[in-house]
Amino acid sequence: MGAGRGRISAERGARLHERQVAQGAWSRCRNPYPPFAVAGEEGLARIEATAFRILEELGLEFQNDRALDILALNGAEVDRDTRMVRFGRDLVRAMVSRAPATFTLHARNPARDVEIGGDAIVFVPVAGPPNVSDLDRGRRPGTARDLADLVRLHHTLAMVHTAGGTVEPLDLPVETRHLDFCRAFVTLSDRVWGARAIGRARVEDALDILAIARGTDRDGLAARPGLYTVINVNSPRRVDRELLNGLMALSEANQAVIVTPFTLAGAMSPVTLSGALAQQTAEALGVIAFTQMVRPGAPVVFGGFTSNVDMHSGAPAFGTPEYVRAVFVGGEMARRWRLPYRTSNVTASNAVDAQAVMESAMSLWASVLSHGNFIYHATGWLEGGLTTSFEKVMVDADMISSMRAWLDPLDLSDEALAFEAIAATPPGGHFFGALHTLARFKTAFHRPLLADMRPFDAWHADGARSATERANARWKAQLAAYEQPFLEPDRGEALEAFVARRRAEIDARGLPG
Amino acid sequence: MGAGRGRISAERGARLHERQVAQGAWSRCRNPYPPFAVAGEEGLARIEATAFRILEELGLEFQNDRALDILALNGAEVDRDTRMVRFGRDLVRAMVSRAPATFTLHARNPARDVEIGGDAIVFVPVAGPPNVSDLDRGRRPGTARDLADLVRLHHTLAMVHTAGGTVEPLDLPVETRHLDFCRAFVTLSDRVWGARAIGRARVEDALDILAIARGTDRDGLAARPGLYTVINVNSPRRVDRELLNGLMALSEANQAVIVTPFTLAGAMSPVTLSGALAQQTAEALGVIAFTQMVRPGAPVVFGGFTSNVDMHSGAPAFGTPEYVRAVFVGGEMARRWRLPYRTSNVTASNAVDAQAVMESAMSLWASVLSHGNFIYHATGWLEGGLTTSFEKVMVDADMISSMRAWLDPLDLSDEALAFEAIAATPPGGHFFGALHTLARFKTAFHRPLLADMRPFDAWHADGARSATERANARWKAQLAAYEQPFLEPDRGEALEAFVARRRAEIDARGLPG
Repeated sequence: MGAGRGRISAERGARLHERQVAQGAWSRCRNPYPPFAVAGEEGLARIEATAFRILEELGLEFQNDRALDILALNGAEVDRDTRMVRFGRDLVRAMVSRAPATFTLHARNPARDVEIGGDAIVFVPVAGPPNVSDLDRGRRPGTARDLADLVRLHHTLAMVHTAGGTVEPLDLPVETRHLDFCRAFVTLSDRVWGARAIGRARVEDALDILAIARGTDRDGLAARPGLYTVINVNSPRRVDRELLNGLMALSEANQAVIVTPFTLAGAMSPVTLSGALAQQTAEALGVIAFTQMVRPGAPVVFGGFTSNVDMHSGAPAFGTPEYVRAVFVGGEMARRWRLPYRTSNVTASNAVDAQAVMESAMSLWASVLSHGNFIYHATGWLEGGLTTSFEKVMVDADMISSMRAWLDPLDLSDEALAFEAIAATPPGGHFFGALHTLARFKTAFHRPLLADMRPFDAWHADGARSATERANARWKAQLAAYEQPFLEPDRGEALEAFVARRRAEIDARGLPG
Repeated sequence: MGAGRGRISAERGARLHERQVAQGAWSRCRNPYPPFAVAGEEGLARIEATAFRILEELGLEFQNDRALDILALNGAEVDRDTRMVRFGRDLVRAMVSRAPATFTLHARNPARDVEIGGDAIVFVPVAGPPNVSDLDRGRRPGTARDLADLVRLHHTLAMVHTAGGTVEPLDLPVETRHLDFCRAFVTLSDRVWGARAIGRARVEDALDILAIARGTDRDGLAARPGLYTVINVNSPRRVDRELLNGLMALSEANQAVIVTPFTLAGAMSPVTLSGALAQQTAEALGVIAFTQMVRPGAPVVFGGFTSNVDMHSGAPAFGTPEYVRAVFVGGEMARRWRLPYRTSNVTASNAVDAQAVMESAMSLWASVLSHGNFIYHATGWLEGGLTTSFEKVMVDADMISSMRAWLDPLDLSDEALAFEAIAATPPGGHFFGALHTLARFKTAFHRPLLADMRPFDAWHADGARSATERANARWKAQLAAYEQPFLEPDRGEALEAFVARRRAEIDARGLPG
């Protein structure tokens, strides 16, 4: 990995940045092409039929008495002793049909609102890893400073849509850490952000902070939802008590729940891909049905995360051919149920190397082609989710920019078809000096963030830096160019007062579930 | 780039290789999914209409008097002074309709025959770079030894279909170098190979060598074609004299011509993508029409190579969003004309790094989704085609394996849907020890060639090798495992005698055009 060599100072990085063309303005993204399908109607029906059998004959375990009350009240078959819940397919259909096919998540800056569903794609930075890495400082436990730097860095990136790019700040107390997350999102960015939903109290705090930041109240938030959270199923077939408390708090408040079974084929689900997908479908539909019992019409997303394990080590594998097919089938199933779809940009690699890019490219292509609407961990995820990498943020950002660029419609105007320019250029000539070229060359092509296209000798003489080393320079340049977005001073003061009060309360009395 | 560090000896590499699961047997590849389209019927019609105007109003320059005779005889409008040839659209349609939609290329080992066209995909290794590189020896001019090693290496790779992976052996005389290429392909591999077509004599030598290797004659070769060659158009709108001599020799002998305009948008074609594609279409269709005048029904492939230049340096850019869209539109146009389609796996990167993989992944995904039938430079291409990299061969081979694996149909049998296995695993349990898992785990999942899925600490303690460094170990292991395929001794002797005779003739009299 060439420790110490080829590192670039922040100053030099900033100069490099100035030489680069701007990455363009933040913009929404749509996939105008038909979704790619591998299972087809017949295959989907077989997977769905198995999912129905799982829901009807086996059930899901809901480890939460209040959730069991709601489930029983709405017609699910609840066994209070085992906490197993069985769902008839008619009940699932009736409940899931309440969910919106698309919804908007509102940011404190309305220009950064995002639509979830349909042919919209929202790229959402990494969340959750306990470690952070970069080429200068190596891999290490995350800190509050890293969290802030990552949120700042992502705020400078135009190709991702939401605030984030997080690492666990392990230097902060766990019971108040959620306050630090929310505060970072609200003060360092003006985009949509996600709350962690382990227990009701954390969600309530996130809602209060969001309301302060947007100058509204709970009714305002319910009318214009802005918060999302990922609720993982503890596959196979178990939903955790505290996650259910968080889910209920979110859905009651009409905020978005991203329901994501963790169905690693061969570990938490069958070793066969279609079996893992049947289980994913059952778990997702069961929990989505539950959200619609909590609050009909509450925004919810069908999450797919099915991958496989490496059968030699038992370690999770990501960005594999199995992952690609699971992403495609998940998309087909989400569309069958008219639900927005969550996918991810994932890799098992320990370094920002050819393996990382290969696996991430597999994930991103499948995510985009399958019409993933909410592409999670879009930037920065490394090492199966154990590390957030600053360089990987930039490599992923570059790939996402390229993916977005090829989705742009082809210009087929007469001017673009360029018959006159072709007629004016003799056989064996060139178009460099043509008026048609000169009028367009500055904006004709997508500018990659990291590519070095110089001849080998020039590249070699200038240090023979790899793209990952250039990513190191680029994230420093981006961070150096960061500008904090405006937050109304009264809201900022109210936010600080709220965080201080809650911190004191939690220090004194702990955090209830 | 970590010079010197992390290199692995051939011995250690071979041991690593033994620990790896075999890559599987050579097999043909089909893409069972519908091709991806971005232009659509209306867009294609607009591009085609512009191409017809180019062919009818502007024409192509054919720098070869014999070619002009044939063109005039077949109804093209030939200007003898300028050598410009204009093609009416009806003539183009009539000629191109003679070309086969699919054809077979026959190898000297019939088990390695490949079909070109339809939904078949043939992965064809790199050809042409003057330089070669690997982590041990760096980048250097190619030699005969490198050529032999690359042909051997590719013969060990099951996921590519043809012989090759070449570099120019710059230590060999240019006038007899084609004999060394042919001899390497025939003796070191038993797969289909490609001839260079600069002038008629080189093609005639290749045909003679192929006939010897297959124990047949020219009629046998014409009945069962086995040779392909790439004919580039010297865009804009010029076809070189010697390439036309080579083309005519190939088409007369009923061998396959891969017609590929070199339409870099902003340099050899308009800066606008649809203009570049209109020019590509015109140039390809004009030359394909010519092949069908030379010999009706001769196998021919519609080649697409449209990319863009980096407008800051003028250097060619590859694997860009523009390249992706050009690949898609090229596929749509080839299908519109019922012709097999050639694409490529390309990158401008100077190193086997994140840029190289990003750009190659873009190229490969577009190539596969667009139903590229003949995916050229599939392995080993680096630095815009100036270098063949041993490590890039393995990285590309790994990506191609993954692409091929996700194309496999999903198993939707009851056993794969695994309801009983799910029923037998309690909520929160795991499937590691399930009988359903144990019966399948050895072959359940694709095994990547290079991925290291160990936990970070284990990977780090073992040298923290990047995937490119593991590729270095892997190509050495593959080379160490190379076994020369059987060639009938009398054919081998005849081959050596032929090559010796031709070498002496060319040394004495030179190589005619």
